[in-house]
Amino acid sequence: MYVVILAGGAGTRFWPLSRKKHPKQLMSVFGGKSMLQRTVERVLPLHPKRILIITNTVQAKETAEQLEYLKHVPIDIIEEPVGRNTAPAIGLAAAIIARHDPDAIMAVLPADHYIVNEEEFRATILRAKGAALNGYLITLGITPDRPETGYGYIEAEMALRGDGPYPVTRFVEKPFFEKALEFLTAGNFFWNSGMFVWQVPVILNGIKAHMPELHGSLMKLDFSADVWELADLKPQIAAIYGEIKGESIDYGVMEKAKNVEVIPADFGWSDVGSWRALPEVIAPDGAGNVLIDAGEAVNIDSRGCLAYGGGKLVALVGVENLIIVNTGDALMVCAEERAQEVKKVVEELERKGLQEYL
Amino acid sequence: MYVVILAGGAGTRFWPLSRKKHPKQLMSVFGGKSMLQRTVERVLPLHPKRILIITNTVQAKETAEQLEYLKHVPIDIIEEPVGRNTAPAIGLAAAIIARHDPDAIMAVLPADHYIVNEEEFRATILRAKGAALNGYLITLGITPDRPETGYGYIEAEMALRGDGPYPVTRFVEKPFFEKALEFLTAGNFFWNSGMFVWQVPVILNGIKAHMPELHGSLMKLDFSADVWELADLKPQIAAIYGEIKGESIDYGVMEKAKNVEVIPADFGWSDVGSWRALPEVIAPDGAGNVLIDAGEAVNIDSRGCLAYGGGKLVALVGVENLIIVNTGDALMVCAEERAQEVKKVVEELERKGLQEYL
Repeated sequence: MYVVILAGGAGTRFWPLSRKKHPKQLMSVFGGKSMLQRTVERVLPLHPKRILIITNTVQAKETAEQLEYLKHVPIDIIEEPVGRNTAPAIGLAAAIIARHDPDAIMAVLPADHYIVNEEEFRATILRAKGAALNGYLITLGITPDRPETGYGYIEAEMALRGDGPYPVTRFVEKPFFEKALEFLTAGNFFWNSGMFVWQVPVILNGIKAHMPELHGSLMKLDFSADVWELADLKPQIAAIYGEIKGESIDYGVMEKAKNVEVIPADFGWSDVGSWRALPEVIAPDGAGNVLIDAGEAVNIDSRGCLAYGGGKLVALVGVENLIIVNTGDALMVCAEERAQEVKKVVEELERKGLQEYL
Repeated sequence: MYVVILAGGAGTRFWPLSRKKHPKQLMSVFGGKSMLQRTVERVLPLHPKRILIITNTVQAKETAEQLEYLKHVPIDIIEEPVGRNTAPAIGLAAAIIARHDPDAIMAVLPADHYIVNEEEFRATILRAKGAALNGYLITLGITPDRPETGYGYIEAEMALRGDGPYPVTRFVEKPFFEKALEFLTAGNFFWNSGMFVWQVPVILNGIKAHMPELHGSLMKLDFSADVWELADLKPQIAAIYGEIKGESIDYGVMEKAKNVEVIPADFGWSDVGSWRALPEVIAPDGAGNVLIDAGEAVNIDSRGCLAYGGGKLVALVGVENLIIVNTGDALMVCAEERAQEVKKVVEELERKGLQEYL
């Protein structure tokens, strides 16, 4: 099995801790190792033949540095010259793997997701691999435990709950609360995790059928299958990315293909989509506060706050539901329910030309 | 005229910017010069014979350093070994001045008050001086412009509004809102500013009459009137402070004496009693925010916040009525209406033995 890790996130939603050159996947969100490092380490017990990291030019250097300690592992870093969403990244990885190992199995994993139970995660990947060998495009569907409106859903055709795989009826965009509650109650809906397992020729056929232009571009890649020397591919990748349109693999292939199945996944998962998601994955203290790198914190009657102290003593007095992030050059205080608007700060900094803060 | 500046504040209410060794009066609350420096500079056009700064052992060093640039001005720094409230500090200064200049006029000014119109302030002091020459204890009463519950009030016996002086009927503790509104409407109530002007023998007689123990202690001081070499007085001051009880000059003398008069003061004033008072004295921006030392601030829909950035870019997202203070070693976020509770943080740090943050 080959593992493809999508690691080209923009780094705006965790500003000011995340930056263009230091996006969420390269951050030590939980202290210790970065999310990318955790993602790579998580698959090592599966002994993948190779791990391909798809990143971009700006982040490639830190990505390589972060993985240097794993130099005994066959890891390849592929730089996209520009971000074009997930379909081109996945297609590029599939084309490269196909050239070396035409019938390989390939798992696609985002670099910046949080997973609680790593054993169960690997067991799920292995079940997905078994199902993929039957020629299906397998997507991992997280069993929902709440009527979450922040995720897309996958509807499955299933008589009884089990390990799956189940045929996928449809993909559903982020729902309103009532719909989400309906999905939760129905029992045959899963959160769309963006994690996939398939055979390389099966996904390439899917791209050929549903995204023929992308397939045509990928087929122009001309390189030797003898060595994994992907740096030589850079000019060719740059050339085809000039003509490739941006599209997600969900919209481009998964929602259109007929051979899509879902494997239920119950390993405890979050896409950690914004600061607001952190208290889901880091246990809050008795007052519902999450204090990270906050020295000798002092709390006078404050609740539901997330504070990154940047090593400073943090004192909270009578405040509630705030996200407080202190870094070397910036300090952000944000109402918890408005965590999605952090990207507006980044947009404003861009407008003002304050590159040093991006 | 001699000017006595009371500069021994504890430095808890402006934590984390104020510290034991760096209390409010030594802070650059408004950027630029400290409140003490502003207080001293404010009286220079009055050409005081000497300026006596009463401070304490912990703050003496920084107090001296801050005033070094004024070395052409006759300034004496007197260290109290322990804080004993205002009556002993004022009595000590009066006793020292009396030994050199028995009939001197003495103005008493807190080091940490904010004054808008400095010309008008000096004119008021001069009016008070004239009244003091008639043997009265003159207190400056700020004409209230709102039903403030955070200040004590002085009731005056006055037929018509004018420059005064007016006999004082009584001193009133911080009132509830209804009382404060009543005082505002009545027109003969003033905020108790803690600024006084009197002849040295008159205040010493007041202390003798109403605080005989304090007077007895002060009379033990034995020193030459030939030179202002107050460092030699240190052991004697330490000895009498061992027996002196703490008391305010208001409670100890002013509320009991019969020869108290008030001079109306209309120079724009705040005692800057907590972080919450700052937006009164620093003009907020259009959204009601006061951002100090906050670099390229970014505001997404936030209102009524006070932020000291400590030189960092400050970003506020959807927050209201917060006090945010970032210093080299500490970060505080406090609900505006709970600014008084900042001292609880200091108490907790004391309990935890975290001296470095005090």
